[in-house]
Amino acid sequence: MLTKEINHLLAQSNNAYKIYRFYSGKQKGDFLRQIAEEIENLGDLLIETANAESHLPAARLMGERGRTTGQLRLFSQLLEEGSWVDAIIDKAIPDRQPIPKVDLRKMLVPLGTVVVFGASNFPLAFSTAGGDTASALASGCPVVVKGHPSHIETSRLIASAIEKAASKTEMPNGVFTHIEGGVEVGKYLAKHPAVSAVAFTGSFVAGKSLFDLANKRKQPIPVFAEMGSINPVVLFDNALKIRAESLATELADSVALGIGQFCTNPGLILGIESEGLDMFLKSFINKMKLKTAGPMLHEGIARNFEKGVKSIENQAGTVIQTIEKEDNLLYGYPTVAVVSGATFLKNKLLHQEIFGPFSIVVKCKDIRELSSIIKKLDGQLTATLMAESSDLKTNGTLIELISEKCGRLIINNVPTGVEVTHAMQHGGPFPSTTDSRFTSVGTSAIFRFVRPFCFQNFPDNLLPDALKEGNPLSIWRKVNGVMTK
Amino acid sequence: MLTKEINHLLAQSNNAYKIYRFYSGKQKGDFLRQIAEEIENLGDLLIETANAESHLPAARLMGERGRTTGQLRLFSQLLEEGSWVDAIIDKAIPDRQPIPKVDLRKMLVPLGTVVVFGASNFPLAFSTAGGDTASALASGCPVVVKGHPSHIETSRLIASAIEKAASKTEMPNGVFTHIEGGVEVGKYLAKHPAVSAVAFTGSFVAGKSLFDLANKRKQPIPVFAEMGSINPVVLFDNALKIRAESLATELADSVALGIGQFCTNPGLILGIESEGLDMFLKSFINKMKLKTAGPMLHEGIARNFEKGVKSIENQAGTVIQTIEKEDNLLYGYPTVAVVSGATFLKNKLLHQEIFGPFSIVVKCKDIRELSSIIKKLDGQLTATLMAESSDLKTNGTLIELISEKCGRLIINNVPTGVEVTHAMQHGGPFPSTTDSRFTSVGTSAIFRFVRPFCFQNFPDNLLPDALKEGNPLSIWRKVNGVMTK
Repeated sequence: MLTKEINHLLAQSNNAYKIYRFYSGKQKGDFLRQIAEEIENLGDLLIETANAESHLPAARLMGERGRTTGQLRLFSQLLEEGSWVDAIIDKAIPDRQPIPKVDLRKMLVPLGTVVVFGASNFPLAFSTAGGDTASALASGCPVVVKGHPSHIETSRLIASAIEKAASKTEMPNGVFTHIEGGVEVGKYLAKHPAVSAVAFTGSFVAGKSLFDLANKRKQPIPVFAEMGSINPVVLFDNALKIRAESLATELADSVALGIGQFCTNPGLILGIESEGLDMFLKSFINKMKLKTAGPMLHEGIARNFEKGVKSIENQAGTVIQTIEKEDNLLYGYPTVAVVSGATFLKNKLLHQEIFGPFSIVVKCKDIRELSSIIKKLDGQLTATLMAESSDLKTNGTLIELISEKCGRLIINNVPTGVEVTHAMQHGGPFPSTTDSRFTSVGTSAIFRFVRPFCFQNFPDNLLPDALKEGNPLSIWRKVNGVMTK
Repeated sequence: MLTKEINHLLAQSNNAYKIYRFYSGKQKGDFLRQIAEEIENLGDLLIETANAESHLPAARLMGERGRTTGQLRLFSQLLEEGSWVDAIIDKAIPDRQPIPKVDLRKMLVPLGTVVVFGASNFPLAFSTAGGDTASALASGCPVVVKGHPSHIETSRLIASAIEKAASKTEMPNGVFTHIEGGVEVGKYLAKHPAVSAVAFTGSFVAGKSLFDLANKRKQPIPVFAEMGSINPVVLFDNALKIRAESLATELADSVALGIGQFCTNPGLILGIESEGLDMFLKSFINKMKLKTAGPMLHEGIARNFEKGVKSIENQAGTVIQTIEKEDNLLYGYPTVAVVSGATFLKNKLLHQEIFGPFSIVVKCKDIRELSSIIKKLDGQLTATLMAESSDLKTNGTLIELISEKCGRLIINNVPTGVEVTHAMQHGGPFPSTTDSRFTSVGTSAIFRFVRPFCFQNFPDNLLPDALKEGNPLSIWRKVNGVMTK
């Protein structure tokens, strides 16, 4: 795409902002619901197209479509209820001494045009009409999506559904824009003065480069990049004693799910040397042998997986290929590595994310070594504790330590399966994301694209409805320090 | 200070974090209240010391002390009430189809050690125990203050008060640290891996350099820099017709207040050529003539003010020195500049902040020129509309335009006088601050130093009180999407 054309589209998007930001929750909610409906109207064609491009099975894609339309409708509900704008009112006290207190009313307002870079591993739920787009549109920001090259036909179909919905619900021209292009177009967008924020899901290299570009702008803008994670799982002694077998099943299922192509894939399993750990390991490898190899999202990803596994093999000495390999360039083959705590501790290359059906099991010699490893870990989206209550009771310090490293801490569940809900946190300390203070999944994702704005001494008729004296929207507000509706 | 010594202090601060972050709202609240009390216990010595160092009059410093202790106590109340942690709970649905819904509970947790760079213009309320320190300590983060060299004795006194309070309320060693040094020490702190966030109030050059350093770290950290603003004031036609005289009085008072050393000083006054504007201007200059010159915070600031005024004089052709100048290197002399809209529009140098008792009045030829100027303005902390309701009715587009440029929009008040309250927003688009999504004044300032953390499938006894099933803290929480207490 020519830069001239992109400039024109961004100018249109900025114009849409000036109108769209004042649309009511009801109007924006209708738009999001209509997008969900238009996506459903695409029918089998969408599933077939996404399947052809991503190699993800139809059943998974149907589930993902449900998640996509579900989150659009969840944001509609949030908008229609309305309290998300965080209205805070401190009323005037004209006769306060020594000076009168002024009337102050604050609420969240949208930032401006948001550029979304979709994820290849969620061609529906984290791409063109995925969580980033849904939350940005919900916040009142126009969205520009750079369609992901690995599923561009799917992206075009979804874009057409969004455009249809925009037209049916009479949204301003430019509220949604679909742009195609490679890395250079992406960089051009992140640097463009018409862009106010960026949402990205993908590799560290790409995410960090957008973050750096955005910070070097004359006017820096926020970049919310979700860049992956190895999602450590700690297997505690008593849990291993009691249920090594079932832990092996659960974790093998989680590691192999979707050919391991999830950012919450448990890529690191830590335990202390014991009979239980040996039993787990034996069973885990056996379970992994029962998994099937399968096509990855695209050859590039399969090649990177292969390369990653090779690099682990070089560092760790050996890896266990649990499935016999065939000559298929697209396939990801379930793989396990096993190393000692000492080896893992001294070799940071073993801490890298291997995107695919892979996990490294680390046998620590004692709790001290395990703690040292936790301390050395990079920031993570999730961490998981497989533990009996007796384990939890005696390992408080370790649990506190691990909580400093992640955004979501799980007890006795697997990290895959990210619920789209209010309490979800999908964002952790750097480098798992560029900003641990926000989430890209769940309704709180909307807070990435807004800023507080304060109206001082405004006449009631000029205030947004959310801040009017009579609370016409009947939303929750903090008035003089007290929550009220 | 030697880097070895600083490393030791930061390690101590990190150790304090591991303890302090689990302290209850009551415990942290007691600490903040005790700090307020210890500051009061410093008595006249504090006022005398601050007066000698900053040249601010005793009455102003007493007011500022009240503001400082007031905001510490306001944060105590916030902590004791407890709902600020934004507890969100989505309960499990074990029999949900096709897969069970897990239990997710999210709340805000502190980031880690915060480094505070105090402001020279608020030696009490925005320095060692000022808003940044109060909000960071309230959030559960230990604080390291780099004492401002221009009021280092005051800073030491306050630090001693905080340390006394920490000891009396049995806070962990290292919860507060006072470090002295120059620019290099500041940079060292911002780059240090033991530091998790930076709060700064001061010049653009210093704030931007901290922001850049922090983003270039291996693990980038947030920098909340409040870097100043020219705080545009628009005088609308009907307001000028009716009350040119009183507007002149209000604005002259605001410009000259505290020798103009406020980040919300109205440094730009815009109006459309008219009889009313001429009347305003004449009266405004007369009022400014009645102001007195006075000592600025330090010679560096006075020199910069002088230089800034010279630069405006060079660009604008002329400035009006409203007070006869004496040979005093410390004094700031009230000054006014008047330029045409066309001149202002084409010369970005006229848009610079002149920190001191200065304002530039811009006579626009029509509303279009005024709009063009608004469009060209940098991000601002505040903007002010002096307007009759008829003005507001007919200038909707202009008001929307100006709202994109600021964090707080004021009607018929002056921008100086920043209320410390829940609804205050003291933070605007870049370059007024590095992050428009946060405020440095008011209780919401606490949100700069926290991140959401999600507990999945935790047994009740291991959850923080804020998330326990029985709501033992009786705080407001969002449970399954509904606010409840």
